[in-house]
Amino acid sequence: MPAKLSFNAYGKSKVRLTKVTRHGKRHDLTELSVDVQLAGDFADSYLTGDNSNVVATDSMKNTVYVLAKSHPVDSPESFAIHVAKHFTSTYKQVEQATITVEQTRWGRIKVGGKPHTHAFVGCGNEKHVSTVTHDRAGSKLLVTGGVADLLVLKTTGSEFRGYVRDEYTTLPETKDRIFATSIDATWTLGDADADFNNCYDLIRTALLETFADHHSLAVQQTLYAMAEAALDACPEVESIRLGMPNKHRLLVDLKPFGLQNQNEIFVPTDEPHGNIIGYVERDRRDTSKRKGSGKRAGRRR
Amino acid sequence: MPAKLSFNAYGKSKVRLTKVTRHGKRHDLTELSVDVQLAGDFADSYLTGDNSNVVATDSMKNTVYVLAKSHPVDSPESFAIHVAKHFTSTYKQVEQATITVEQTRWGRIKVGGKPHTHAFVGCGNEKHVSTVTHDRAGSKLLVTGGVADLLVLKTTGSEFRGYVRDEYTTLPETKDRIFATSIDATWTLGDADADFNNCYDLIRTALLETFADHHSLAVQQTLYAMAEAALDACPEVESIRLGMPNKHRLLVDLKPFGLQNQNEIFVPTDEPHGNIIGYVERDRRDTSKRKGSGKRAGRRR
Amino acid sequence: MPAKLSFNAYGKSKVRLTKVTRHGKRHDLTELSVDVQLAGDFADSYLTGDNSNVVATDSMKNTVYVLAKSHPVDSPESFAIHVAKHFTSTYKQVEQATITVEQTRWGRIKVGGKPHTHAFVGCGNEKHVSTVTHDRAGSKLLVTGGVADLLVLKTTGSEFRGYVRDEYTTLPETKDRIFATSIDATWTLGDADADFNNCYDLIRTALLETFADHHSLAVQQTLYAMAEAALDACPEVESIRLGMPNKHRLLVDLKPFGLQNQNEIFVPTDEPHGNIIGYVERDRRDTSKRKGSGKRAGRRR
Amino acid sequence: MPAKLSFNAYGKSKVRLTKVTRHGKRHDLTELSVDVQLAGDFADSYLTGDNSNVVATDSMKNTVYVLAKSHPVDSPESFAIHVAKHFTSTYKQVEQATITVEQTRWGRIKVGGKPHTHAFVGCGNEKHVSTVTHDRAGSKLLVTGGVADLLVLKTTGSEFRGYVRDEYTTLPETKDRIFATSIDATWTLGDADADFNNCYDLIRTALLETFADHHSLAVQQTLYAMAEAALDACPEVESIRLGMPNKHRLLVDLKPFGLQNQNEIFVPTDEPHGNIIGYVERDRRDTSKRKGSGKRAGRRR
Repeated sequence: MPAKLSFNAYGKSKVRLTKVTRHGKRHDLTELSVDVQLAGDFADSYLTGDNSNVVATDSMKNTVYVLAKSHPVDSPESFAIHVAKHFTSTYKQVEQATITVEQTRWGRIKVGGKPHTHAFVGCGNEKHVSTVTHDRAGSKLLVTGGVADLLVLKTTGSEFRGYVRDEYTTLPETKDRIFATSIDATWTLGDADADFNNCYDLIRTALLETFADHHSLAVQQTLYAMAEAALDACPEVESIRLGMPNKHRLLVDLKPFGLQNQNEIFVPTDEPHGNIIGYVERDRRDTSKRKGSGKRAGRRR
Repeated sequence: MPAKLSFNAYGKSKVRLTKVTRHGKRHDLTELSVDVQLAGDFADSYLTGDNSNVVATDSMKNTVYVLAKSHPVDSPESFAIHVAKHFTSTYKQVEQATITVEQTRWGRIKVGGKPHTHAFVGCGNEKHVSTVTHDRAGSKLLVTGGVADLLVLKTTGSEFRGYVRDEYTTLPETKDRIFATSIDATWTLGDADADFNNCYDLIRTALLETFADHHSLAVQQTLYAMAEAALDACPEVESIRLGMPNKHRLLVDLKPFGLQNQNEIFVPTDEPHGNIIGYVERDRRDTSKRKGSGKRAGRRR
Repeated sequence: MPAKLSFNAYGKSKVRLTKVTRHGKRHDLTELSVDVQLAGDFADSYLTGDNSNVVATDSMKNTVYVLAKSHPVDSPESFAIHVAKHFTSTYKQVEQATITVEQTRWGRIKVGGKPHTHAFVGCGNEKHVSTVTHDRAGSKLLVTGGVADLLVLKTTGSEFRGYVRDEYTTLPETKDRIFATSIDATWTLGDADADFNNCYDLIRTALLETFADHHSLAVQQTLYAMAEAALDACPEVESIRLGMPNKHRLLVDLKPFGLQNQNEIFVPTDEPHGNIIGYVERDRRDTSKRKGSGKRAGRRR
Repeated sequence: MPAKLSFNAYGKSKVRLTKVTRHGKRHDLTELSVDVQLAGDFADSYLTGDNSNVVATDSMKNTVYVLAKSHPVDSPESFAIHVAKHFTSTYKQVEQATITVEQTRWGRIKVGGKPHTHAFVGCGNEKHVSTVTHDRAGSKLLVTGGVADLLVLKTTGSEFRGYVRDEYTTLPETKDRIFATSIDATWTLGDADADFNNCYDLIRTALLETFADHHSLAVQQTLYAMAEAALDACPEVESIRLGMPNKHRLLVDLKPFGLQNQNEIFVPTDEPHGNIIGYVERDRRDTSKRKGSGKRAGRRR
């Protein structure tokens, strides 16, 4: 036979879930989208159509709802861990379970200035995400947290100069431009019992504050400063990946109309966009967490 | 000739715009998307390809940027009025200009609890919108304000009973369900000099607070109460249209798994969705604006 | 009371449906999305929460499936007529039913050059759409057919010159540009028993062929020629609306790199885009359908 | 310092491009979206804001246009190779260039049955994609081709039985269901001088024909048969990855309405969806390419 199956996996994606938890009149609201992916002893289904090891993806969906009912859903991370361990411990043919949970954020509507007990308003595109991989062998557990689609923009405090100038270069250097991006962060958590929501809040604040205050010589430099601040803010985090597209605001040329555009009028564009990626990890040679130490602090204003 | 041109219009859509206004170190940020549509004496372009009356859509785009530079952009409504009047007053062939402006909302990043001078974070999908139509003849001006994509959800305080039961009915009646919708509101403003942003804030608050507090016997009933509250809140508004899709959260049947689902676990669905629409206008027979008067108040808790 | 309900309507949107019709081994596949909207005696639901006249939107969904099972689904138009009449004839409180049906197109996979009996491949974004409004009073029936999202592009045969040049104009005139658009057509059908699919095919062909062959002096002019050709092609059509966004392909300036760009390299852009609209109706003063007569033909090459 | 940069990369995404190639009156049309990503000696930009090694992403965009002008754009694969090698050979700081090219498909409009010389109609969502990675060290070149978003559906010839039944299972077994998916295929090409478009056509045909003819006991099994057929069809391909979401069509329960639904009426759903993945490689122990040999052929009807 000329072919062989070198890897396979399958699962259910976009299992959406609303959980309401009641504390008397005060209700908590959690909305998640869950992806389940299993790898293991499933080759027969591919090779011969023998499904005897196959857990139907419809059953995975049922499982997510049963587990959400019978177990607290406190954070994407903790629920993903619970679901992952369920699959590896329930089915001996499952060698690895990968669970991704994406939480949509809701805030309480304020009525007369007071947060409402059971009415909520959407908090936008920002999502709290987690991916957990559990390997049956050795019970290896990999937990990541993250934030996706966190949109930020600063109107000044961003330069871009000193880059390669050659025959392909037309971009003028600038000491003052708009810097807009959609932060996509994923961090690895060393401790599977961390306070995941607290980590999320600390890192989110560190990312936002550093973005705001850092005087940027390049998107790359600000990305690194933000990653460093996130590691500083949350000791449970071992490493962080930041992806920051450069969502360009292009200065409109108003000279044809006899006007000076002094960084006032821009065109927001979606494409093409720059795409800056960095992985930053805690340096184990020196794990002191001196807040605000080093070069980064010096670059703050 | 067997055909005639019975109506025509043309324009430019999605002219996106960022405006930065500086007050010393403190910057204001405004982001808009502008649509321009003109009707008038343009038939020759359709019938013979004679473009001598045609204002190129590229020039419309330029015009939007020039006007944004040379004029304050205080609200979608005021900018739409300015752009509409520009086209009807500049080109005699333009009989009607319709300008739609959609504002994306940004909030200031807080650093150490204080709003930042020049760094912003996205406020989600919610948009402040306005459509202005200016007719050259008689200088008739129609101004609407609006909010789009304002996502809300309440976990209780919503019933649905007493509807038609016939052979097509399978939905069980309920005294307690989740009520989730994406509010789409458009209001007509009688006064072209109103404080449009203040109207927006007042109406937005009225919509949110009424959604939260109203005990709902039907989406229709809550929609009407919200519309009434909006008219109460802002005297400049003559009428309001509310569109509220019913973004169903379906109760998961957990009985097959030996579990009782006491309004805890739901599936959020996007389709199909209910779609409830109402137009409510100020009753001119009695224009007293008795806050909280009448039936609606009685239904509040 | 300060407010009154001036209009209301409600319904169910995005009721998606797959119908398989078997002719021995050969299967036909139809996929639709149906929107139902009802107007009538529903004010009590808004004003007092009395739902006794309300047909639940869940029951509308059920109805669509029951009608799809018990009745042929030959075309979007014929099914929309059937569903609309069902609602006005079944419920006396329904004064007007508006049904929109959008059909996704599938083609048969060819195996060894022969169309397969039961395997299909998606035909892209193009949709066959219909909106039917049935008024109970007088049994007034309004039927439209249409095509949406039909993407076309021609690499030459398109000029744009002679338009207004003033202080807002920077666009250079051109005798040769790319013309790309997404055709959105809606036509009114005088006869509720027309062969709707045949109309669709005839109009679609007329639109495509005219777009291809017409030498364009303006998008407006080509739009009119296409509309005229559609009326010529299908006598049952009384009028047609065409919406044709100008999906610009911008010539890349390669001079900074010492290269001449002779209409070879362009940037496709989504925004901003021109937006050209025309309504063309059959001229009742002269209903002869002289194919290819008049100015349009002369403009063909 | 508590942190270190463990990996970095940056680039430009969604550089969209239209190329028109003229052969007398007959024009060819190519539309691409190009992503450029570079890794190499860029850490200083992250660590200190020193951009002296940074090729601006704006210059990457310019480069794509210059290369598209000065070099044939015959296939996504060949253009991606050309762009990748340009970056690694032009800039010594670039250690690895990864280029992804996605081609939108256009077909010629037929006028009077004949393909037009310069007018085109969109072919839907399906895309021809390629990712090329070029490592400067050792000039290692990895070339993949692929097809994305190829939507297919069969109305019968698909079973799903014999899977795990436990307390989480509610799905009934079936000998006849609809099988719908959106094929996402990526193949590795051993030869950087292969006829890439021919490979694409051969593989696309093999995927479609096998999907149509294979009697499916599981999505997994059909996926494997399709992968095997692709390897059979194109000797230059070394391995293939198939991702096939199970885009469920759910049988509508019509019993409450006194009707039997004999696999006629279904609800198409987008979420949740199954997600089946397989990697299949040519087995080097037996590289004979016996067309139609082995188990797969036996399973064909």
